[in-house]
Amino acid sequence: MSTRNSRSELERTAVQLFRKLGTRTVLFHQAAAQALGLFPTDLKSADILNEAGPMTAGELGKKTGLSTGSVTALVDRLEKAGYVAREKDPSDRRRVIIVPLTASKKHVKDLFRSLSESTMDLCRDYTEEELELIFSFVRKAADIMEEELERLKQ
Amino acid sequence: MSTRNSRSELERTAVQLFRKLGTRTVLFHQAAAQALGLFPTDLKSADILNEAGPMTAGELGKKTGLSTGSVTALVDRLEKAGYVAREKDPSDRRRVIIVPLTASKKHVKDLFRSLSESTMDLCRDYTEEELELIFSFVRKAADIMEEELERLKQ
Repeated sequence: MSTRNSRSELERTAVQLFRKLGTRTVLFHQAAAQALGLFPTDLKSADILNEAGPMTAGELGKKTGLSTGSVTALVDRLEKAGYVAREKDPSDRRRVIIVPLTASKKHVKDLFRSLSESTMDLCRDYTEEELELIFSFVRKAADIMEEELERLKQ
Repeated sequence: MSTRNSRSELERTAVQLFRKLGTRTVLFHQAAAQALGLFPTDLKSADILNEAGPMTAGELGKKTGLSTGSVTALVDRLEKAGYVAREKDPSDRRRVIIVPLTASKKHVKDLFRSLSESTMDLCRDYTEEELELIFSFVRKAADIMEEELERLKQ
């Protein structure tokens, strides 16, 4: 029994596997953005807005790591494409916030529908207990990715 | 017992979770590329070359979904940054192939080292059997992503 060997092999497999998934993910989002008439990074910023809700341009810049000028250009493109609207913050009328538009969510959802359906189909091959275990790992992997992103931006 | 409900909830969780991981992944690769002085998509193309080995510009265009002009500009940037070299195909001297350079792999690896280490640390919380199960799911998720990418490019 070479448990130590097979464990370190498994750990290397994890790195390769998540890297492979990462490459495919980046290429998929790139192609999806192109299909929607946006830059690759725009779609991800729209995703962040959909996840976190309305925020100021400054907050969006912090979350995406983009400069002030890049954020302005980004919001211009998203606004033109109908994905977001610039609105006055109801709690502070002097502040402008960027609001994700529901219509855009539907448009993006259409594009991602097949991916979502295939992912749900894949789940059907696993028991609930197995899925809980798998998701616990993927959730932590997503947290790691966020921590590493913070580290990179410093 | 509402097994049907909790299953469909689990399936929706899968979609949200992989989408969240996807967003973080895209942002991470964007920041990494920036740190390396490359465009966000360049690093992924370098990754494809590292995974699949030397190929022609035409083949790289097919794999990335980029136009001929974009591939030429991409290879120019990667060559200038020392990530790839244009070489004559040993099996057909009239063909030019793009070869990933080992030195570049090390450079990129340095940047990804912390991410790799955190991923390996995460593995230590799981048994080998659990990891096999998790990886079977992630492997299939990566396959789905590749199929969906092909579909999007059509």
